[in-house]
Amino acid sequence: MTAEGLGLPMAVPATDLPARVTIHEVGARDGLQNEKATVPTPVKAEFIRRLADAGLTTIEATSFVHPKWVPQLADAEQLFPLVSDLPVALPVLVPNQRGLDRALALGAKRVAVFASATESFAKANLNRTVDEALAMFEPVVRRAKDERMQVRGYLSMCFGDPWEGPVPVHQVVRVSKALMDLGCDELSLGDTIGVATPGHVLDLLSELNEEGVPTSAIGVHFHDTYGQALANTLAALQHGVTTIDASAGGLGGCPYAKSATGNLATEDLVWMLRGLGIDTGVDLGRLTATSAWMADQLGRPSPSRTVRALTHKDSDGSKTSENSEDSHKER
Amino acid sequence: MTAEGLGLPMAVPATDLPARVTIHEVGARDGLQNEKATVPTPVKAEFIRRLADAGLTTIEATSFVHPKWVPQLADAEQLFPLVSDLPVALPVLVPNQRGLDRALALGAKRVAVFASATESFAKANLNRTVDEALAMFEPVVRRAKDERMQVRGYLSMCFGDPWEGPVPVHQVVRVSKALMDLGCDELSLGDTIGVATPGHVLDLLSELNEEGVPTSAIGVHFHDTYGQALANTLAALQHGVTTIDASAGGLGGCPYAKSATGNLATEDLVWMLRGLGIDTGVDLGRLTATSAWMADQLGRPSPSRTVRALTHKDSDGSKTSENSEDSHKER
Repeated sequence: MTAEGLGLPMAVPATDLPARVTIHEVGARDGLQNEKATVPTPVKAEFIRRLADAGLTTIEATSFVHPKWVPQLADAEQLFPLVSDLPVALPVLVPNQRGLDRALALGAKRVAVFASATESFAKANLNRTVDEALAMFEPVVRRAKDERMQVRGYLSMCFGDPWEGPVPVHQVVRVSKALMDLGCDELSLGDTIGVATPGHVLDLLSELNEEGVPTSAIGVHFHDTYGQALANTLAALQHGVTTIDASAGGLGGCPYAKSATGNLATEDLVWMLRGLGIDTGVDLGRLTATSAWMADQLGRPSPSRTVRALTHKDSDGSKTSENSEDSHKER
Repeated sequence: MTAEGLGLPMAVPATDLPARVTIHEVGARDGLQNEKATVPTPVKAEFIRRLADAGLTTIEATSFVHPKWVPQLADAEQLFPLVSDLPVALPVLVPNQRGLDRALALGAKRVAVFASATESFAKANLNRTVDEALAMFEPVVRRAKDERMQVRGYLSMCFGDPWEGPVPVHQVVRVSKALMDLGCDELSLGDTIGVATPGHVLDLLSELNEEGVPTSAIGVHFHDTYGQALANTLAALQHGVTTIDASAGGLGGCPYAKSATGNLATEDLVWMLRGLGIDTGVDLGRLTATSAWMADQLGRPSPSRTVRALTHKDSDGSKTSENSEDSHKER
């Protein structure tokens, strides 16, 4: 048997789902930040270019944190100019005013700050309390808005926390509202350790709505540590969420399990969205080829199930995917 | 960071989902049948005993096909008596009257026949047309019902076929109805190559209902080749399906991609169901320990994300899961 007949999923739209979804691609930032290997700057630039060529329109490029904290992204100043001509949105992370200065100097138009829903992770990741971190972001968001930038507010540990266990929804809602009050245009609700399940997702989204945060301002950021990311995404789509974070090839190892995955793989997401008839503009063949290429650069197989299935070698040694989507359609 | 605080998912029930689900565990049959290694009979028996001890109540034990076709399960006669005292349902596969004779002689109480929704797979798997296979099953099902056995009808390639591409819903409905007309008590709709997406699943379930097959007679059997199995399961649950096939540890490699998974992993399913507050009776800690043990027997890591996450070694070398659920709760 070969995969020749697999092609793409049959599109059978489900009722009451969004017609279009924006994939917020985080592989080049969140993915590479959590890979052990440090990737050369030109390889990162080619990765981002290939992602844009595959049809992704929002590609998080890098992070302007202090190189001491994230050495994998210490080349932000060198990388950004190599991709800033691309006709796509290239958000970057900025933890503080110094980071914002660096992003502004390079012409970045979108920035993101990153808060935590739990005190334990705020302490571990930012060495601050939750409220101290919010206070640190306040002038950053204000100035970014003055500069007419679009501002995203990441919120980590929205469902569970490795130190605190399950995270109460009201606690997440409080920090979410604080980020919106600072002036964030969009939230990204992170299930950083991958423990969420669909009912929990729907509960949080409903509570946010009730507290005045509209679904249109909410993105979701699921991790696949326990295999739940795509089911949670389906629940979020059913609620009306139209911004989904994902990482090409599932890049970004989970800190808790070397062999497990971290981020939801963009390819697995695109497969589902195509099957649901939801437009993303992404060419799955090109995207898969990009992730297979990146996996070669990193020297380990992609954890994305779709990438593995579409790029496996047939018994005759031929690969079935390293080409554009058109060639799949012809099969 | 350690996984100490992970524990179990927070239970947040979603509305309109079943209160209880039966997991039809297929690891010992469908899983081992598709593993390269042939597992010694006593190991298989211990696997089934451990699965029962973990709380699974329906454990497919083996297959009474000709050993020439499935050498991995050639020990059916030796295995079944080693587990038949267990207080759980132990369905077995029977392709024909000879297989049914063998199952009856050993006191099996549940059997399953296996049909295909496509001509290509019927030819490849049974060397018959779809209708010739149904004709072969007719006396098998009749006699099994005469013997007061419960009969399951497997249906392969319900969504896509490697030779034929997407499979029309009406084609699946026709064979489903034929299996019900033969006297099957339950269907298992198989996404053998893992290409289904949630809209397609809902479409098939609705069509089956319209054609007189009640949801209560339908089980779903998803493969995780493209990472879609759990999202498809959520859609099936939302439709009211209460029988879900899964394979402990995700056993059963996909024939199309050595490194990809085949069956939905029971642990990933249990994680979601627990999070949704749906009762399964399964102890996730015991089940994970069983799958980790079986992975050791097979000499390769489990493809289940949950098994990997819960059994990874912490930096101090300690494992976080090889113990029962109770110890998780205390953390």
